Amino acid sequence: MANEEKTTGFRPLTPEPTLRRLPWYLAYVSLLRSRGVEFVSSTTISKEINVDSSQIAKDLSVLSIKGKTRIGYEVEALEMAIKDFLGFTSSHRAVMMGVGSLGMALIADRGLQRFGLDVVAGFDTDPSIIGLTIKGVPVFGISELKKRREAYNADIGILAVPVEQAQSAADLLVDAGVHALWNFTPFRISVKPGIVIENTSIYANLAVMYSRLSALDQGK
Amino acid sequence: MANEEKTTGFRPLTPEPTLRRLPWYLAYVSLLRSRGVEFVSSTTISKEINVDSSQIAKDLSVLSIKGKTRIGYEVEALEMAIKDFLGFTSSHRAVMMGVGSLGMALIADRGLQRFGLDVVAGFDTDPSIIGLTIKGVPVFGISELKKRREAYNADIGILAVPVEQAQSAADLLVDAGVHALWNFTPFRISVKPGIVIENTSIYANLAVMYSRLSALDQGK
Repeated sequence: MANEEKTTGFRPLTPEPTLRRLPWYLAYVSLLRSRGVEFVSSTTISKEINVDSSQIAKDLSVLSIKGKTRIGYEVEALEMAIKDFLGFTSSHRAVMMGVGSLGMALIADRGLQRFGLDVVAGFDTDPSIIGLTIKGVPVFGISELKKRREAYNADIGILAVPVEQAQSAADLLVDAGVHALWNFTPFRISVKPGIVIENTSIYANLAVMYSRLSALDQGK
Repeated sequence: MANEEKTTGFRPLTPEPTLRRLPWYLAYVSLLRSRGVEFVSSTTISKEINVDSSQIAKDLSVLSIKGKTRIGYEVEALEMAIKDFLGFTSSHRAVMMGVGSLGMALIADRGLQRFGLDVVAGFDTDPSIIGLTIKGVPVFGISELKKRREAYNADIGILAVPVEQAQSAADLLVDAGVHALWNFTPFRISVKPGIVIENTSIYANLAVMYSRLSALDQGK
């Protein structure tokens, strides 16, 4: 459970599986904090979440805090350390491409802000949407993308356009200067090297769920 | 590119990686259809999407249609076959647990319906939300969950509650008779065997994106 002192300010690249598990620990630790629990060990976390306790200890070793023998981690400090490490306490600015059903929902969802993402503006081609303000977030026409993105200094572009426009919208965002694309379409966009792409295809997960449900029905 | 004739109506369990790739092909094929393209080969799909063409041919072999040598697949037939196979053309009924910011956004997002998911009712504990109708979907109190779920014959429960309530809301849904849980919280819920769980943690993806962005900044 010990954690090596970092001897340099340069943070090594964290393995992606660790980055995907840390939010699970964070969710559990937040629950414990809300219940007033003060300390937690990787063994306790392991019992709640289906992950091996040595794996948990290894994952938590990337953080700047240490657990204490027999007592474990201080819950509040651990929660804050994970949040910090994952970038959830920093403010990242993003522009939303496509303010249709999903884009509007994502702007309206205050959840993103709790995880450090500030959607500063939306962009759309639909004249009936341009000019609207959704929960304080203005919607502009696509022609204003480059100028507005620069003014807001937004690093992240969120893709919530129809699938047919995914690639062209991605190109516009990259051209406007974003360094990362959060792609909510199921389209596999391609961009020049050095641009980060994170795919979150909500609907693709449905196929896996349907298939398992249907296997369940067949098994009866 | 040939596809074995299925000799039985009992569909074998499709490997999850195939189920996760098929929506990518679907997205591209839908794009081709909207452009009026009539035929497509796995080689062409491979060039657009970063997947090996033999892998694509293998994935598409689970479908009931065959490609033709040199011509490939008929675009419209392929689009429909993938949609059918993934369950996007069937109607699956779901109840929404938690009609806060995310739950309301998911109900309002018509995208789910296009992928075969019909959210028939929402459930919440907040008296200011109970009684509302969101895009035609009524919101009830939790006490009505069991009765209403049965009446709607909804097989799927969507979890969009705060993380502290994830496990107890999951228990209520299973008790009310759903067979699958679509978990939008980052909490790793545990349920009895035979219940399908699909995790879609939107926010967890943010951590990976932030980390890659920060690595990018350090590399400059």
